[in-house]
Amino acid sequence: MSHEPITDLSKLCIHTITTKPWAIEEAAKNFAAAGVKGITVWRDTLAGRDIKKTGDLLRAHDLSIVSLCRGGFFPSIDKTKRQAAIDDNRKAIEEAHQLGTQLIVLVCGADPAQSLEDSRQQIQDGIEAVLPEASAAGVRLAIEPLHPMYADTRSAINTLAQANDMTEAINSPWVGVAVDVYHLWWDPNLEQEIKRCGNNEALFAFHICDWKSPTVDMLNDRGLMGEGCIPLKKIRSWVEATGFDGFREVEIFSTEYWQQDQSQFLQKIITGYKNHA
Amino acid sequence: MSHEPITDLSKLCIHTITTKPWAIEEAAKNFAAAGVKGITVWRDTLAGRDIKKTGDLLRAHDLSIVSLCRGGFFPSIDKTKRQAAIDDNRKAIEEAHQLGTQLIVLVCGADPAQSLEDSRQQIQDGIEAVLPEASAAGVRLAIEPLHPMYADTRSAINTLAQANDMTEAINSPWVGVAVDVYHLWWDPNLEQEIKRCGNNEALFAFHICDWKSPTVDMLNDRGLMGEGCIPLKKIRSWVEATGFDGFREVEIFSTEYWQQDQSQFLQKIITGYKNHA
Repeated sequence: MSHEPITDLSKLCIHTITTKPWAIEEAAKNFAAAGVKGITVWRDTLAGRDIKKTGDLLRAHDLSIVSLCRGGFFPSIDKTKRQAAIDDNRKAIEEAHQLGTQLIVLVCGADPAQSLEDSRQQIQDGIEAVLPEASAAGVRLAIEPLHPMYADTRSAINTLAQANDMTEAINSPWVGVAVDVYHLWWDPNLEQEIKRCGNNEALFAFHICDWKSPTVDMLNDRGLMGEGCIPLKKIRSWVEATGFDGFREVEIFSTEYWQQDQSQFLQKIITGYKNHA
Repeated sequence: MSHEPITDLSKLCIHTITTKPWAIEEAAKNFAAAGVKGITVWRDTLAGRDIKKTGDLLRAHDLSIVSLCRGGFFPSIDKTKRQAAIDDNRKAIEEAHQLGTQLIVLVCGADPAQSLEDSRQQIQDGIEAVLPEASAAGVRLAIEPLHPMYADTRSAINTLAQANDMTEAINSPWVGVAVDVYHLWWDPNLEQEIKRCGNNEALFAFHICDWKSPTVDMLNDRGLMGEGCIPLKKIRSWVEATGFDGFREVEIFSTEYWQQDQSQFLQKIITGYKNHA
């Protein structure tokens, strides 16, 4: 299946944050009308809503609810905050259950006031603390390694090797990894680490976008597929060679694109997906 | 020597770009007056000057000329540009020789129009092309791995492991590595890779600064030692455990600090160096 051009949208998922100006109801309607088949829901879009009914609405649009974004942010030098994070992750698991999705993506967190090693231990402790709730709810947790430029405050897990190490250490069918090309494209060990999580049956999610040159903002300047230097087709071939046949999730944070007409942006996403993903 | 507090400035080197508003003559005078003993010269500061006389001036201020910054930028999808880069690196070697320094730091380069693997091969080819000139001039070349956030255009070498791999592949006493905490602090393999280049007698330079949270600019928002989350004392202990006894080079690009009074900034550098490096 590797390197084959994409001719249909049956595996295209879009994150609600990608079209942030749209409320979730609007996103669902527009995604469905364009033929998109999957949606990943960011928690902020659920504010003030009946979560179960929102899930029903998405399914009524024939959208698979691929995952809930996001849990995590476990580390803190402050014990009270660590407990609050664990409580919030339990809440996220309950939200995922109500929404009707079987996956939560974890942006694991980091606290610059302590060592990366301490943050990693707290991540592992936090995931293990919520495992009973995750398994009871039938919700899997995907550790998403984040780009090293986020190691200070967003994640102390910055390579797929580290995510695989932690997955293996926790050793639960409910814990795996999310591969996001934006975070990992530069890693010389990426192919072998994708194989490794594939062999562990731990490759739970695949996120795509592109890396623009120049990138003018560390958080909100991601590119559309084809706009940048990420070898998307190559990485997808590695992911799919493991047997992964899940959705390809478009996750783009972009101040520039959020300012544009979102219907036109959605068409650009579909074009970029077909031609470059 | 590890973890011992720094009580004197005998190993403090400052890069000319750190106090960019100062011309090199002004930097030399002020560094010397403050007791700084080393200077690393950025090539732009030599524009329009007699390079040999500038070297004499620095030595007259009792400053060791630790290195010349920077060579590199070898990769390009365009063969003409690759040859131009090799020519420019030969020019840099000649400049280092005239200045009277025995080290050039290489920011190796990358071209987003081609794969990272192709860029790496062109880096190795470029270094090997200039080795005869380097050895004839008595100038060593330090491969500086750059943070993965610069993998698109600045360097296809983004971990110390990759720099060590290339150093070992080239296998010349004239080629080693520069360890810069800003680029490498997040790397879980950093301690072992520092040991590895130490064992190869290839640890040629050690650059310090800090990583601020938040970092608001990908290039020009580096922090003073102590302002951020980099475990500076720990990394220095690893570097010095290899037997490295060279300068600790303060390399800070900061729009914020460049706008301040540079004499006051210099005192902050010295305070940060003594208390946090």
